[in-house]
Amino acid sequence: MANAYLQVIAHFFAKPGHGDAIVKHLAELAEATRAEPKNLYYEFFRSPLEPDHFVILEQYSDANGLAEHRETEHFQRLGFGTIIPLLERREVSSHMVPGDAA
Amino acid sequence: MANAYLQVIAHFFAKPGHGDAIVKHLAELAEATRAEPKNLYYEFFRSPLEPDHFVILEQYSDANGLAEHRETEHFQRLGFGTIIPLLERREVSSHMVPGDAA
Repeated sequence: MANAYLQVIAHFFAKPGHGDAIVKHLAELAEATRAEPKNLYYEFFRSPLEPDHFVILEQYSDANGLAEHRETEHFQRLGFGTIIPLLERREVSSHMVPGDAA
Repeated sequence: MANAYLQVIAHFFAKPGHGDAIVKHLAELAEATRAEPKNLYYEFFRSPLEPDHFVILEQYSDANGLAEHRETEHFQRLGFGTIIPLLERREVSSHMVPGDAA
């Protein structure tokens, strides 16, 4: 049986013209995030039809994983300091997936 | 309070060289799927770093929505008939998100 985990789906909408910079910064953030003890998965994707629309899929081993991610030095610097100022808006949802779900 | 819904996260891994064709076919599948009565959301995304890796985010208004999506004429034709033969593999997970979750 799979263990329960926190699934995060984050939508980032770039200010026009900043999408390629966001790719570069998200790649750095992804690498740092994957080294967090509670992180199970971190990958980001971009809409081919609306290239200012990014989706980040994240999984953490417990319900506190996202809050702890946001407190890290790398998220403070790259997330709050670098990427979020390049966004028009973001929508982040998170929910626990039970251990017996696929 | 938001209603409960079925969240689907589908990872499609294209055979090398078929990614651009998949974009075209997914755009057509997306439009048809959004017209299904139980579909709440359907968008697809592509990894900037691994462009053969696609993610499709889908939401349905109840637990049967994905199974019913797979039975539609458009999924039989575009999904099973056109897109899936262009993939090396796919991984589809789905789980209900409770109505009081964000």
